[in-house]
Amino acid sequence: MKTQVAIIGSGPAGLMLGHLLRQAGIDAVIIERQTQEHVLSRIRAGVLETVTTDILDELDIAARMHAEGLPHAGFNLAYDERLVRIDMRALVGADVMVYGQTELTKDLIDAAPARGLEIIWEAADVALHDVTGDAPAVTYIKDGMEKRVEARFIAGCDGFHGPSRQAIPESQGASYEKVYPFGWLGILSDVPPCNHELIYANHEHGFALASMRSPTRSRYYIQVPLTDKVEDWPDERLWDELCLRLPPEAASHVTRGPALEKSIAPLRSFVFEPMRYGSLFLAGDAAHIVPPTGAKGLNLAASDVRYLSRAMIAWFKSNDSEAIEAYSQKALARVWKSERFSWQLTMLMHRFPTDSAFDRRVQIAELDYIASSEAAQKTVAENYVGLPL
Amino acid sequence: MKTQVAIIGSGPAGLMLGHLLRQAGIDAVIIERQTQEHVLSRIRAGVLETVTTDILDELDIAARMHAEGLPHAGFNLAYDERLVRIDMRALVGADVMVYGQTELTKDLIDAAPARGLEIIWEAADVALHDVTGDAPAVTYIKDGMEKRVEARFIAGCDGFHGPSRQAIPESQGASYEKVYPFGWLGILSDVPPCNHELIYANHEHGFALASMRSPTRSRYYIQVPLTDKVEDWPDERLWDELCLRLPPEAASHVTRGPALEKSIAPLRSFVFEPMRYGSLFLAGDAAHIVPPTGAKGLNLAASDVRYLSRAMIAWFKSNDSEAIEAYSQKALARVWKSERFSWQLTMLMHRFPTDSAFDRRVQIAELDYIASSEAAQKTVAENYVGLPL
Repeated sequence: MKTQVAIIGSGPAGLMLGHLLRQAGIDAVIIERQTQEHVLSRIRAGVLETVTTDILDELDIAARMHAEGLPHAGFNLAYDERLVRIDMRALVGADVMVYGQTELTKDLIDAAPARGLEIIWEAADVALHDVTGDAPAVTYIKDGMEKRVEARFIAGCDGFHGPSRQAIPESQGASYEKVYPFGWLGILSDVPPCNHELIYANHEHGFALASMRSPTRSRYYIQVPLTDKVEDWPDERLWDELCLRLPPEAASHVTRGPALEKSIAPLRSFVFEPMRYGSLFLAGDAAHIVPPTGAKGLNLAASDVRYLSRAMIAWFKSNDSEAIEAYSQKALARVWKSERFSWQLTMLMHRFPTDSAFDRRVQIAELDYIASSEAAQKTVAENYVGLPL
Repeated sequence: MKTQVAIIGSGPAGLMLGHLLRQAGIDAVIIERQTQEHVLSRIRAGVLETVTTDILDELDIAARMHAEGLPHAGFNLAYDERLVRIDMRALVGADVMVYGQTELTKDLIDAAPARGLEIIWEAADVALHDVTGDAPAVTYIKDGMEKRVEARFIAGCDGFHGPSRQAIPESQGASYEKVYPFGWLGILSDVPPCNHELIYANHEHGFALASMRSPTRSRYYIQVPLTDKVEDWPDERLWDELCLRLPPEAASHVTRGPALEKSIAPLRSFVFEPMRYGSLFLAGDAAHIVPPTGAKGLNLAASDVRYLSRAMIAWFKSNDSEAIEAYSQKALARVWKSERFSWQLTMLMHRFPTDSAFDRRVQIAELDYIASSEAAQKTVAENYVGLPL
């Protein structure tokens, strides 16, 4: 098969890129290792910046998001029974949209056939070939047969563990990484959220996050040691601990319910540079990971794809290679700012086993400062809603 | 001898407190271990916030400061040949005043006799007595004789190593500390400064600061390992290293000259809580130390003294003990915010031997973010000029 852009991975990065290219009349094929059912069963982030909702709007795949999503004008930082509201709408004139990544992925998949965006599911043993040349290819096994997609460009949207980044020789790039000494134990439950806005809480026992997917579906997280197992946390223990860590007013409104999903995710900061190698372009988690604090992962994938789609469209439509040449540097500039914010918000709201009493006091002083300074609240807000492209 | 307030230490904290009390007609005596010549030979900070200049103005001891001091409307953060100017005047409508602590101390000492503020110099073996009661006393040896000052209150303004904090039993307080794995090698020289505003530089080799005391006297610093000795740094080596670390434009304007003073100071963050024990009140370095980055030390002493003088005046003049009771908590709230800022600016501008490649990139991302965000610049500016009392 021949196409213009072979996209590896049908997560939000691959799907948004495929749609943006198709909208410009460029041929693209998405090659995905998993089944469609598996992709749609993954529970991921749920807070969209304007950079992401703008893409959905421009693609005209935003109807369900606007109908079912929840625009949030603010969120809260909680500590020592204090609640500091970050009023994003008042401070920087922007909202975020609470809409599950799973739903967004479903909307993009559903819209694909009518727009001529082919998604090849269950493609095993995906491999990249000739990525340094002008005619790269992707091979995979489907129904027991080896298949080959030839393209002008390959977009590696296949996440942290996918084959795209691995196709770049070690000598041609550099990895930057930070691993955190704890994970997030998350629970998804069909109960009304305890608060209409998100609450990030820094409690003596560790971090807690009250979040939601809809008015009837809650998403909660608590910081746990990496040595903990999900089996250590029966639902009741988790609900008890959550209520202890949230500010009393919010805790009193927690409705308990059975877990639709419960899992422990490690936290990691990771960046691979550069994001281009010959005809291969990385986007999203394939190139960088942020800890979930601040919900930057999906939104960084969206900004990557925004830069990359524009660059590829300019290349195919106007023979203009300037943006293609600038892609890695431009995307990384925004990536590093989000890495910084995600890291800083993680440091601010979690308890680290290595923290000294001084570190803990500085953490409180930082929260006190944010509570008292409009400029400080504005820096939090402008990062949370997403820095300009 | 009897007085109302016995002040231990004739640094800026003790001198400002003594003058403020005397201005309100309260008797105060300062007891100082060193000679006047020694106190006036100490080279210290040189950037005054409004909280400090306001005190000098109200005391009417500000004439020389206004004549010889240099109001600065901005300062600069340098990295990777970039210079980010923090325009304090435009961002938060305030300046800082460059005027050496040595000069300020001289002005306060010179004004003391006419205002009935006695300073007892060369008081050896200073000891505090009965601090938990209503009639505390300070004893010392002078000219071979033991002397005793009886007072209603004792103000411990005797720095990190003085006897005041030591007079508080360990069980009655808590210390918070952070030690940094490097020091500042400073040089004072009678040469014109390389730039009309301060430059804080983050260079591959470590931090550098271009500062000044006057249009003809420069003060420069470079970060060095704690294992270095002053003898390792002959003047020429220091000037060479400084010029390497400063941005090229500034480096090209460095005028070299002989060192009037050259020394290595360790960096430390330290807070003792509470700042009151019975009739003993701590102020300035006796209760807290900040690393010199951001020049908060002297200015924190000024805000302590502002709170403390108001509290004591209310107590003596109006029999109002509310502010006396609130002193420790009020002073500490501001102390911790300055500790946070000094720590953060230190982390931002220095190279730590333990930094990973990720940490370094996050440091650059933070500087890039500050360069690009007015809100971020405003947070730096409002902390630099001093948070409101």
